[in-house]
Amino acid sequence: MTHDLDARMQFAIDLARRAGELGLKYFHDLDSLTIESKGHQDLVSQADREVELFIRAAIAKDYPQDGIVGEEHASVAGATGYVWVIDPIDGTANFVRGIPAWCVVIACARDGETVVGVIHEPSTGETFHGRLGGGAFVNGKTIKTSAATSLEEGSVGTGFSNRAEAGHVAVLIRMLLADGGVFFRNASGALMLAYVASGRLLGYVEQHMNAWDCLAGMLLIEEAGGTVVTPDPKTVLQDGTLVISGGKGVFSKLRELSWEAFKL
Amino acid sequence: MTHDLDARMQFAIDLARRAGELGLKYFHDLDSLTIESKGHQDLVSQADREVELFIRAAIAKDYPQDGIVGEEHASVAGATGYVWVIDPIDGTANFVRGIPAWCVVIACARDGETVVGVIHEPSTGETFHGRLGGGAFVNGKTIKTSAATSLEEGSVGTGFSNRAEAGHVAVLIRMLLADGGVFFRNASGALMLAYVASGRLLGYVEQHMNAWDCLAGMLLIEEAGGTVVTPDPKTVLQDGTLVISGGKGVFSKLRELSWEAFKL
Repeated sequence: MTHDLDARMQFAIDLARRAGELGLKYFHDLDSLTIESKGHQDLVSQADREVELFIRAAIAKDYPQDGIVGEEHASVAGATGYVWVIDPIDGTANFVRGIPAWCVVIACARDGETVVGVIHEPSTGETFHGRLGGGAFVNGKTIKTSAATSLEEGSVGTGFSNRAEAGHVAVLIRMLLADGGVFFRNASGALMLAYVASGRLLGYVEQHMNAWDCLAGMLLIEEAGGTVVTPDPKTVLQDGTLVISGGKGVFSKLRELSWEAFKL
Repeated sequence: MTHDLDARMQFAIDLARRAGELGLKYFHDLDSLTIESKGHQDLVSQADREVELFIRAAIAKDYPQDGIVGEEHASVAGATGYVWVIDPIDGTANFVRGIPAWCVVIACARDGETVVGVIHEPSTGETFHGRLGGGAFVNGKTIKTSAATSLEEGSVGTGFSNRAEAGHVAVLIRMLLADGGVFFRNASGALMLAYVASGRLLGYVEQHMNAWDCLAGMLLIEEAGGTVVTPDPKTVLQDGTLVISGGKGVFSKLRELSWEAFKL
């Protein structure tokens, strides 16, 4: 089984990098990119769709019996228990406006539990990866979550989507600042989760994330020694989840703040 | 005089890129970097100090009669009316933790008015530059501020420092979200100002910024067709300034929100 996971992990790393190269081609030619609105402050581009199709085709070729859940196209049911969960471009709002902070996200879940996670940022060439029980890495180097024990020792990432009450994140930020913390939002949730896994951010909190945005990063955080609120394996692939995550020394504080800010 | 400015601009572009290369050497060897705290959530590293010394030495060689104001070392009085205003590493908190969003900032002011501005991001290789009356560019390509007329059409950058009441930025974020906007904070104020100049962010608002963080970016925004609150030329180099900036279509809205949030 571990052999299966390692093979899928290597496949995912290679695929995320190839998908990133394809994404970069679109990113370097934004003037001719087709962009549509999916809703309030929610965009999708031809690049999201094409990169997702590229990833799906690679999975269908190498793992034709696995399932696929992605952001931009319909789900594919599988027969192996493995489901690939993919976001071709996390940080689309950045991408379409020319901000280089965006990433390709490929996770693989087995019975709702994430077993492989890869987050690749083409603009900087950083690839974060991990598999269940195998540790977490950036470009092959082991990463660890922050050892901080206070929010005064760094920054906490957060996000925004239509799927949560907008006012809640403002309350969270007010509470973070009152506790001596600082907020960070580079508008790519998956990238910020990778930054938590590598100890660059103390934690990341968002009231709702879709599975393709958060599963890879949450696995990386746990494999790097941090703590996350475990999503419900029965519903997370379809419904997404609350995300509260961080180094062990600040997690309980972040959970406490989130609980109050998000009125949970 | 324009010839003088063009020469200084080319000098600043070249110098920012060379300083960025030096910064990258430290960035790629963070494990051995000496880091100190200057105050609450305010760090400085050996890299900040060494890169600033490198920039100062280059200015002293080519423009020995010009003044210098920098973040990490004492000011140098000049005799030409020109003062170089430099931040060797904007986004130090990112830098020391391994987040690639940081930049070298070099501005040149004449009698308190910014005449040259360069913002160079080594991790992505983007160099934003402009001179008074000469337009604004990224890697040589003309940039323009956003043409948006509503905050619903993009994101607004903001920042945090010890020099303002922390609660004010939380109020600003609440108001932005209530107006259909989104906040962005990648923790490099100069880089976010460059993103405003290039239309990637709608605007940038911060209650107080130091001159070395904001003068280059504010010049770029004006040269790219946007609007900024003009700082007081008599005090800005020493005391810093309020920053409200954006594309022409959203500037007045941002000023209105800032006025209320910051209790001005």
